[in-house]
Amino acid sequence: MNSNKSIKEKWIEYIHQLQDNICAALESADGAAKFVEDKWERPEGGGGKTRVISNGSVFEKGGVNTSVVEGKINPAMMQALQIPAAGEGGSWFACGLSMVLHPANPFVPTTHANWRYFELYNAAGELMDQWFGGGADLTPYYLFEDDAKHFHQTLKNAHDPFGVELYPAYKKKCDTYFANHHRQEEMRGIGGVFYDHLRPTATKDVNWLFDFQQANGNVFIEAYVPIVMKRKDILFTAANKYWQEIRRGRYVEFNLIHDRGTIFGLKTNGRTESILMSLPPTVRFDYNDQPEKGSEEDKLLQACLHPVDWLNIESGIGEEVNHWAASVNSC
Amino acid sequence: MNSNKSIKEKWIEYIHQLQDNICAALESADGAAKFVEDKWERPEGGGGKTRVISNGSVFEKGGVNTSVVEGKINPAMMQALQIPAAGEGGSWFACGLSMVLHPANPFVPTTHANWRYFELYNAAGELMDQWFGGGADLTPYYLFEDDAKHFHQTLKNAHDPFGVELYPAYKKKCDTYFANHHRQEEMRGIGGVFYDHLRPTATKDVNWLFDFQQANGNVFIEAYVPIVMKRKDILFTAANKYWQEIRRGRYVEFNLIHDRGTIFGLKTNGRTESILMSLPPTVRFDYNDQPEKGSEEDKLLQACLHPVDWLNIESGIGEEVNHWAASVNSC
Repeated sequence: MNSNKSIKEKWIEYIHQLQDNICAALESADGAAKFVEDKWERPEGGGGKTRVISNGSVFEKGGVNTSVVEGKINPAMMQALQIPAAGEGGSWFACGLSMVLHPANPFVPTTHANWRYFELYNAAGELMDQWFGGGADLTPYYLFEDDAKHFHQTLKNAHDPFGVELYPAYKKKCDTYFANHHRQEEMRGIGGVFYDHLRPTATKDVNWLFDFQQANGNVFIEAYVPIVMKRKDILFTAANKYWQEIRRGRYVEFNLIHDRGTIFGLKTNGRTESILMSLPPTVRFDYNDQPEKGSEEDKLLQACLHPVDWLNIESGIGEEVNHWAASVNSC
Repeated sequence: MNSNKSIKEKWIEYIHQLQDNICAALESADGAAKFVEDKWERPEGGGGKTRVISNGSVFEKGGVNTSVVEGKINPAMMQALQIPAAGEGGSWFACGLSMVLHPANPFVPTTHANWRYFELYNAAGELMDQWFGGGADLTPYYLFEDDAKHFHQTLKNAHDPFGVELYPAYKKKCDTYFANHHRQEEMRGIGGVFYDHLRPTATKDVNWLFDFQQANGNVFIEAYVPIVMKRKDILFTAANKYWQEIRRGRYVEFNLIHDRGTIFGLKTNGRTESILMSLPPTVRFDYNDQPEKGSEEDKLLQACLHPVDWLNIESGIGEEVNHWAASVNSC
């Protein structure tokens, strides 16, 4: 990359390259479906490239979206971002990649990842604030301890060169953030990492932060795709699919009630279809669904209710479930 | 009713009688399923009776819930209610009936109704504020103009004795309130009536308001059940069911992103399962779904995008759709 370019320019370039790389890896994993791209423009400024995959052999629905947007600061937006106001007449810039993948097979986990960069300007157009945010997390429907360990270990490996204190801190933030507060903090899945408002400091300048973001973005394929390949051909029953759709309901609840990214998008007049691409394709909401105590479904639920330190456990939770060799669901 | 009782006592009595009446009428219309009751208590005070019907011959999922709850005032609650604070140390009382019915057949509309009464007290326990709110609305998946007219006319008939200005005003409030603001104000359905913060005045005292609430509650069965009986045996295809599930997605979006009742419930530590009983049983979220121009699906969508004055239209929208005599969906 040309070092004369601004961080903003370099980030835009990086994020689009990453979008191409991730889409290629996912198409290869799917083996059948291809991403379809919708380019869109935003009346207030900027636009994006929404890439959607659907009805694939692996991915029932998914999107890998980039956007480069800007606008005038408004109070609803500042509240959604949880940052102090930048004064009257200010403006903002945001660029990021946001992805969600909903596999058809309940034994393949859903994943979400997002890497973003913000700049705020005062009325004179001077840079007043800048920060990076991002993360990746896993939402299985059945618990394979090996998968949880692999996902977390791969993220930790990307973090450690930047400071061994980072993975534990951002793992905890992820557990706390992706939780349904209206359901006793039940997590959406089994976590990953989440960080926000990473601003340049004397020791960690904007280039350091940019390197950290790239390390995270670059490791995603390695963190997720091997899990897909390992689980995508497990046979599943209608009961397994039903449970997946119940858990997808929790995913919808989190995204629409609590997720700051969704709220930010909708309040800044974002493109609704690109934002709500994250919602699962088919979903069930049953009244007061409770899995049977000790069942495989209950094990997953317990892991969502009680955060696990995946890299420091002996065994016990989520052993292999190869005994689910059941007839393929034709629902 | 004993006139020595307080409005609060009379309202509690009324709402439980109404719950019994409505459940009986709906069980009769369904002909197969019965409501199952969950009584619950709230640690902060009060409780409720959640009555759920599921997998009936007509109703795929539904609930007719009452609650009688109270607690200390907190800022999140005041914001959700959109009312000024009642001072430090105050408390609140709320009692209401809330119902949502999701029929299995896409030709039978979903309906929602709610009638509620609030009291606010200062730290000394003195009554500082009191108001009624309520309404009923219809969410069809296919448009039958006759049904829309019948529903609106029945509500208007209940309103008119209290002032002919009320139905048009509350019909408009309903159109405005039950809209997905993130989708160009697309309405959840074809409306009904909605009113809130009806406080006693010199000419309309609390007994007048109580009478108005009863007139509304009492007319619900007449407004909805004849539509169910008229449409429940229409044959439908998998494509009709698919469209119903897409529209149910919009229902979920409204309830979780915009509905004040849902937000109030979740922020006041309400019983999550009773609040989210309103969510449809099976739902689809497709990326950028667009019905074919001029199709029956598009006619419904257009009626949601452009509010119709159902009692003053000549014809044209939503003529009978008897030609949908198709094979029964076995999905």
